[in-house]
Amino acid sequence: MKEVINHIKSNKENYINELKDYLRIPSVSTSSSHKKDMLTCAKFVSNKLKDAGMTKVKIIPTKGHPLVYAEWLKAPGKPTVLVYGHYDVQPVDPIKLWKSDPFEPVVKGGKIWARGANDNKGQNFVHIKSVEAFMKTQKKLPVNVKFLIEGEEEIGSENLELFLKKNQKLLKCDAVLISDTSLYAEGIPTINYGLRGLAYMEVEITGPNKDLHSGSFGGSVANPINELAKLINKLQDKNGKITIPNFYKDVIPFTKKENANIKSLNFSDAKYAKELGVNELQGEKGFNTLQRLWGRPTLDCNGIWGGFTEEGAKTVLPSKATAKISMRLVPNQNPDLIAKEFTKYVKTLVPKSVKVKITAMHGGSPVVIPLDDPAILAASKATSKAFGKKTVYTREGGSIPIVVDFVKLLNAPAILMGLGLDSDNIHSPNEHFSLKSFELGVLSSAYFLDEFSQLNK
Amino acid sequence: MKEVINHIKSNKENYINELKDYLRIPSVSTSSSHKKDMLTCAKFVSNKLKDAGMTKVKIIPTKGHPLVYAEWLKAPGKPTVLVYGHYDVQPVDPIKLWKSDPFEPVVKGGKIWARGANDNKGQNFVHIKSVEAFMKTQKKLPVNVKFLIEGEEEIGSENLELFLKKNQKLLKCDAVLISDTSLYAEGIPTINYGLRGLAYMEVEITGPNKDLHSGSFGGSVANPINELAKLINKLQDKNGKITIPNFYKDVIPFTKKENANIKSLNFSDAKYAKELGVNELQGEKGFNTLQRLWGRPTLDCNGIWGGFTEEGAKTVLPSKATAKISMRLVPNQNPDLIAKEFTKYVKTLVPKSVKVKITAMHGGSPVVIPLDDPAILAASKATSKAFGKKTVYTREGGSIPIVVDFVKLLNAPAILMGLGLDSDNIHSPNEHFSLKSFELGVLSSAYFLDEFSQLNK
Repeated sequence: MKEVINHIKSNKENYINELKDYLRIPSVSTSSSHKKDMLTCAKFVSNKLKDAGMTKVKIIPTKGHPLVYAEWLKAPGKPTVLVYGHYDVQPVDPIKLWKSDPFEPVVKGGKIWARGANDNKGQNFVHIKSVEAFMKTQKKLPVNVKFLIEGEEEIGSENLELFLKKNQKLLKCDAVLISDTSLYAEGIPTINYGLRGLAYMEVEITGPNKDLHSGSFGGSVANPINELAKLINKLQDKNGKITIPNFYKDVIPFTKKENANIKSLNFSDAKYAKELGVNELQGEKGFNTLQRLWGRPTLDCNGIWGGFTEEGAKTVLPSKATAKISMRLVPNQNPDLIAKEFTKYVKTLVPKSVKVKITAMHGGSPVVIPLDDPAILAASKATSKAFGKKTVYTREGGSIPIVVDFVKLLNAPAILMGLGLDSDNIHSPNEHFSLKSFELGVLSSAYFLDEFSQLNK
Repeated sequence: MKEVINHIKSNKENYINELKDYLRIPSVSTSSSHKKDMLTCAKFVSNKLKDAGMTKVKIIPTKGHPLVYAEWLKAPGKPTVLVYGHYDVQPVDPIKLWKSDPFEPVVKGGKIWARGANDNKGQNFVHIKSVEAFMKTQKKLPVNVKFLIEGEEEIGSENLELFLKKNQKLLKCDAVLISDTSLYAEGIPTINYGLRGLAYMEVEITGPNKDLHSGSFGGSVANPINELAKLINKLQDKNGKITIPNFYKDVIPFTKKENANIKSLNFSDAKYAKELGVNELQGEKGFNTLQRLWGRPTLDCNGIWGGFTEEGAKTVLPSKATAKISMRLVPNQNPDLIAKEFTKYVKTLVPKSVKVKITAMHGGSPVVIPLDDPAILAASKATSKAFGKKTVYTREGGSIPIVVDFVKLLNAPAILMGLGLDSDNIHSPNEHFSLKSFELGVLSSAYFLDEFSQLNK
């Protein structure tokens, strides 16, 4: 490993220059005007994989933007890791707020500033470079490696999902390695081991058959906005528990190890509240903030509308009111079952004086990788070696649907070896990525390949 | 009276032709392109008042559209009635839905079809014609009469309010006679003796200082939409009673006479529910529908918005959510006091985890004229004679702010001698007015002048 590590350390500047070339390609997947740039970027990635010594490098066309696939499978008896990443980036609007050209990377203050610097070019490039370091110094890799870098993550990964379903054999592996999340804090090696799922519903309440004058009719008929408010109120009790029957039935409680990990993180409620500009945090009673964010289901209204919403005072008693209500789910809650329970329950809550229409808009499964999974342990050791600190474990409150697809379809654990920071402005102007994290990322990736090779297949 | 009545009956056709001329003037007050038509219409009204035998007829300029004033004060020792009406009309959009030209009146099916046919040209014209009938046949009126016909009712009567405040002596009277409401049902003589008031509030709840991702943050902080829903829910109890402290303190209960009147109306909940397309009516427990509409205060959300309100499923935990909440008030509730109590109470309802901003948007006083007021009794007898049926008493759930101003500033009862029907499409395409109601209106007005003259001044 020494040669590999030294190679990486002495090539730091080269890596940054190569990353700059990667960042110069305006691979904005959402805009059709960048279609050509997307192909240019896929070619760039495939060339870098070839240069790194990967074999069978292919640009695979899809109905949308192409996938890049590569493999190196010359380590018989050793486990296989599939590295996932994406070469597409978010749009740059509002362009005015950028301090430098989003597609002309600038190094300043120990950071590289450009669209995609963190999300995800900077983070996926570390794995290409770690493979290269092995190949350049050892002529071989310690494990079998596959790469799958897509161009549609920022627009929903639809074509990747289709590809996954049809190519489970090609993509067969013992772990999926993904760097697309954040460090717990700067300089702290972090492995994310869980994501919440989602059940997203829309509820429409209809009262009278047309908008009425709230003077002439107020007091005689149910008001759909008031009824919607009552309904939303009934979905949670005063302790913040969700009142839907069977809602918590399949929730896996925190393990002792998880609780010990959370305790060790010394999360500051005060600092968090200050950042969000609130006087007090709020959530389900009986759980601390990280428990609530990472391993407890929630119910949040994401939108609500009805009646008169302009400036002024129109006295309308509206015919309809609508809310978008989503529930974040945790293992082993099933989004389809939760949507059904929600629907059944909500129907019982509305009075006869109104009608209710409930639509399941979107669902996604939660996922958690056991903290004693050998791949998780290997990743933990690897990042600890690279950063020179004890690795911490986090879960993420949001969902990354494609991770769940990997875990389910390939039957392999996902290793979320995030290297960014929440403050890196990943979907905003002035995106950046710490060059220190970038370097430690290449080292973490290299250590992981080594650690992973010590597992029995 | 016989001569007066015969004169009216034999001039029916003339009245309709004159009303047609009145309706041909497109006096849309809200549109600056009709400024000239407004003056034309004011001149038309003043000429009709002169023709009717009124004296001191004046077109009084305002900052907006002119007022028309007239008087006949040659009945010493007799009471004075002030007739109020408005010559301006609502816009005609959507013009496509009209079956005939809104400004080319058509008589069909016993109705006259045109913009303003009911609201308010048809209804104010009856009083000009009844005065004329007296003057043509008796050369005098049985009481003193003043007319005040404005051109800004459909845009808020602001300039009339100013004029009222400055001209209380000029407008001094013993009753204000207004035909601008509806009959309880076709052919039923109706006197409206009360209007509800209004306190219209806006409540804005702010949670985190920016929109957050509901996955990454859901469960850790209060959601402003959920909190707004909880707040709205707390404003009423399960019996539909409003929970604001001191809210009902000043509410005058129904009198025995009022309850007897309501009972006599045989209001059909089933028919009303069917018309509104609801399976069941809803409102404050312990009161029937007409009681709730006419004499009980209400609380209705008139609008609500927050978060993502487009198609689809965006997972946002919004920073803000806002509702417009209005309360209809009844005598003797004071809109300013109610707004204060609301504000004080709402502040106690929100948790520390969010901030609340409460704005009083608009207020108006309720009014009720005692059912044994001599002017009410005179109007009741008059309409009963004209229609040949017992007069019924109604109140209106909505507010007509200018009526309250008349009552308060002139210290006189308002007689709402409505002649329209709720089905006359007054603010919609194909407005119309029953010719039978028009004729019975002229007769009612004539009988009223006669009945009112029998009161001691």
